Amino acid sequence: MATLNSNYLKLKAGYLFPEINRRVKAFTDTNPAGAARLIRCGIGDVTEPLPASVREAMHAAVDEMGRRESFRGYGPEQGYEFLRRAIAENDYRSHGLDVHEDEIFVSDGSKCDCGNILDIFGDDNRIAVMDPVYPVYVDTNVMAGHTGPSAESGLYGGLVYLPCTAENGFVPEVPSEKVDLIYLCYPNNPTGATATREQLTRWVGYALANDAVILFDAAYEAYIREDGIPHSIYEIPGARRCAIEFRSFSKNGGFTGVRCGFTVVPKDLECRTDSGEKKPLHPLWNRRFSTKFNGVSYITQRAAEALYSPAGKAEVSALVSHYMENAAILREVTASCGLPTFGGTNAPYIWVRGPGGLSSWEIFDDVLNQAHVVVTPGSGFGPAGEGYFRISAFNSRSNVEEAANRLRRMAW
Amino acid sequence: MATLNSNYLKLKAGYLFPEINRRVKAFTDTNPAGAARLIRCGIGDVTEPLPASVREAMHAAVDEMGRRESFRGYGPEQGYEFLRRAIAENDYRSHGLDVHEDEIFVSDGSKCDCGNILDIFGDDNRIAVMDPVYPVYVDTNVMAGHTGPSAESGLYGGLVYLPCTAENGFVPEVPSEKVDLIYLCYPNNPTGATATREQLTRWVGYALANDAVILFDAAYEAYIREDGIPHSIYEIPGARRCAIEFRSFSKNGGFTGVRCGFTVVPKDLECRTDSGEKKPLHPLWNRRFSTKFNGVSYITQRAAEALYSPAGKAEVSALVSHYMENAAILREVTASCGLPTFGGTNAPYIWVRGPGGLSSWEIFDDVLNQAHVVVTPGSGFGPAGEGYFRISAFNSRSNVEEAANRLRRMAW
Repeated sequence: MATLNSNYLKLKAGYLFPEINRRVKAFTDTNPAGAARLIRCGIGDVTEPLPASVREAMHAAVDEMGRRESFRGYGPEQGYEFLRRAIAENDYRSHGLDVHEDEIFVSDGSKCDCGNILDIFGDDNRIAVMDPVYPVYVDTNVMAGHTGPSAESGLYGGLVYLPCTAENGFVPEVPSEKVDLIYLCYPNNPTGATATREQLTRWVGYALANDAVILFDAAYEAYIREDGIPHSIYEIPGARRCAIEFRSFSKNGGFTGVRCGFTVVPKDLECRTDSGEKKPLHPLWNRRFSTKFNGVSYITQRAAEALYSPAGKAEVSALVSHYMENAAILREVTASCGLPTFGGTNAPYIWVRGPGGLSSWEIFDDVLNQAHVVVTPGSGFGPAGEGYFRISAFNSRSNVEEAANRLRRMAW
Repeated sequence: MATLNSNYLKLKAGYLFPEINRRVKAFTDTNPAGAARLIRCGIGDVTEPLPASVREAMHAAVDEMGRRESFRGYGPEQGYEFLRRAIAENDYRSHGLDVHEDEIFVSDGSKCDCGNILDIFGDDNRIAVMDPVYPVYVDTNVMAGHTGPSAESGLYGGLVYLPCTAENGFVPEVPSEKVDLIYLCYPNNPTGATATREQLTRWVGYALANDAVILFDAAYEAYIREDGIPHSIYEIPGARRCAIEFRSFSKNGGFTGVRCGFTVVPKDLECRTDSGEKKPLHPLWNRRFSTKFNGVSYITQRAAEALYSPAGKAEVSALVSHYMENAAILREVTASCGLPTFGGTNAPYIWVRGPGGLSSWEIFDDVLNQAHVVVTPGSGFGPAGEGYFRISAFNSRSNVEEAANRLRRMAW
C-alpha cells in the first residue's frame, strides 16, 4: 500500500499568513467601515508597477517568440548565458568578488531555491536556524524529515535555534555546539537587521572550522543603504568554501508576480559523502537543475537582464528609495510612540517591540481594530519574536502616510 | 561535517541528451559540410512560433503589470482561479470528468511536477517504471534514495521495470508482484504508443486492489487523433481514488520556453501514514506548493489561459496538426524502408526498430553520418529500447521533408 510522507503531518496547520487572513476576514466581515479603510502592511509583497525597462524587454521577448527564426524552446536549465553573465558581472565581479557564470543558477524564485537546496544534502546534517525565522527554512526541513515533532512553544525537536534578540542586535553568536547547515538571512526578514563584516567573518570562520555550510539568504540585499555592510557572503574571505547564496529579483525589480531569482553554488564548496570523501556540491545542484527543472521562461530571463541595464538600474534604485522612504516614515512613528523600533534603515521591514505584557497576536488585534492596519505578529516567526510585530514598508506613499497617522493616534 | 546526498553519486554521468550533443559536436567539428545541413529530429522540443492569442495575452498582462492599480505581486501559489477554472472546465468537466478547480495545481512545467511529486510520498514505496522510460522518473527516484546502484544494463536495483515491447504494443501488463507507485505515460514518450480504455482499466483495477498510486503523465494528450483513446486517466472509473495526472502546455501551446503545466491531485486519493491510517494526499501537495513554490508568473498564467479561448484552441489545433502531418511523413518513410515503425499516429514521436543486429547507438551514428539527421537512440530510454530509435516530429515542414528524403536514400 502506497505511503505518504508522514513528516508533513508534523507541520503546524496554521501557517502565519493564513491565520492573518482569517483574522482580517473576521474583522472585515463584521466591520464594513473598517474594511473600506484597511491598510495592509503585513506580507512583504511589492506594490509598485514593474519598471518600464523590464516591460519593454518582455514585450520584445514575446515578439521574438512569435517569429519562427527567433523562437526559443527549451533553454539551458541553469539559465541563459546572457543572464548568468549579467548577474556575475554586476552583482559580483564589479564588486571584486570571484563568482563565475556557471556558478549561478537562475530559478523561478528564492523561496523555491531555499526549499530545494535540501535535496542535495544528506539527511543526517544538524540544522541551525535563526529565531525569529523565515518559516520556509524550518518547514522544508520538517517536510524532509530532519526534525522531530513540534513542541508547545512551536519549536521543532532536532533543530538548533539561534535566538536573535535586541541584546545581540538580532545577529546570533556562533553556537558552542557543532552544526552542519546554518541558515542566515541578512538583511533579515523579519527583523530588518543587518550583519556586520566582523559578525559574518565569525560565522565563516565557524563554518570553515566545522566543515559546515552557510545557506545565506540575501534576498533583501538591494535595501542596504549604509556603507560597509556586506551585500554578499562572498565578501568574507573563505566563504566560497563554505557558503551558498540565494538572491531574488522579487524585492529589487518588483518580480514577486514575475518569478525569478538565483542561487550561487561555488565550485570550491565541498561536503562529505557517505563513504567519508569530500566532493563538490556544484555538480549535484547542477544535476538537480537538469533533472527536476526546465529553466525559467525566456521572457522572464530577458526581463531580469533588463534590471542590469542603465535604465533598469535607475528604476531599481528609484523603487528601493521609494520603499525605504516609506520605511523611514514608519520607523519614525513607532519610535516616537515610545516603542523600541528596529530595522527599516537597511531593510524594508520595521521590527517593533510592542507595549509590555502584550503578546504579538494581541498587538496584531489592537492595531487591526484601532488603526485598521494589518501588521505581522512577531511570534509568527518564532518564540523569540513574541511581543514584537513587523511592519512592511511595501506600499504606496499615501497608504504609508495614512497608516503612520493612524498608528500615531493609537492608544499604545 | 556537512554531508551531501550520496544518492546523487549513483546517477550515471552520461544523461542521454548530453551524450547526443557530444557525438553531434564531434561530427560537426570534423565535417563542416555535414554540419551545415544537419537536421535535428532528436530532442522533443517544439519549433513553431508561440500562437498569436498567447502573445496578445502576454502583451496585455505585461501592460497590466505596468500600472499600479492592476499590478500583481504574489499570486496564489496553486495558480490563479481564472486559469484553474479554464483548465477544469475545458480539459475535464466539458468531457464529463469530475475535476474541481482546487484539485488543479498550476506549475512551471510537468518535468518539475514529475520530480517534485515524490516529496509527498514515503520513502518505503515500491516503484514501478516502464522500460523504455522518460529518464526523469528514474533519476528523481535515484536522487531520493529509492534505488540501489545501477547495474551494467543501466537498470537500478530496487525499481520494478515494466518492459514495453512490440509484442505488448508498448503497454505493460500489470505486474504479478505488488508495487505502490506506478509511472504511466500515454501517449508515450518515447514509443508514441497509446493505451486503450481496457488497458488503463486493468491498471486502475490493479491500483485500487493494491492501494497503489498511478502517476499518469499525459503531457502529449493533445496529440491523440483517434477516437476512443482515453485523454485522461480520470476517464477510467475509480481513477480519482488512485491516480495523479500531469499535463503540460509545452507540447500543445508550444510553451517549452515559456514554462507552464499542471497536476491534478483528486481529493479522494488517500495513502497510508506511518501509523497505518489512510489520509488524503491533496493537503500534502497543497502544503508543498505553498511552502516550496510561489506560483507561476502572472503573465505566463494569462498566456496559458489564452490557449482555452476560441482563437487559442484553433491555434493549438493547427500546431498539433502541423506536427502530426510531419509525423505522418516520417512514419511513411521508415515503414517504406522496411523498418518496423510504431507511434506517430497519436503522438509526435515515431519509434523505429533499426536493422537487425545494430545497436541503437550504431544506428544513431549511421543516421548522423549518412543522412546528417539527429535521432534519439532507443537504448537511451532503457534496455528495452535497444535496437530502436526515436524520431521527433517537432520541426518545420521543409526540414521534415528533407530529412525524409535523406532517410529514404540511406543504405539501411
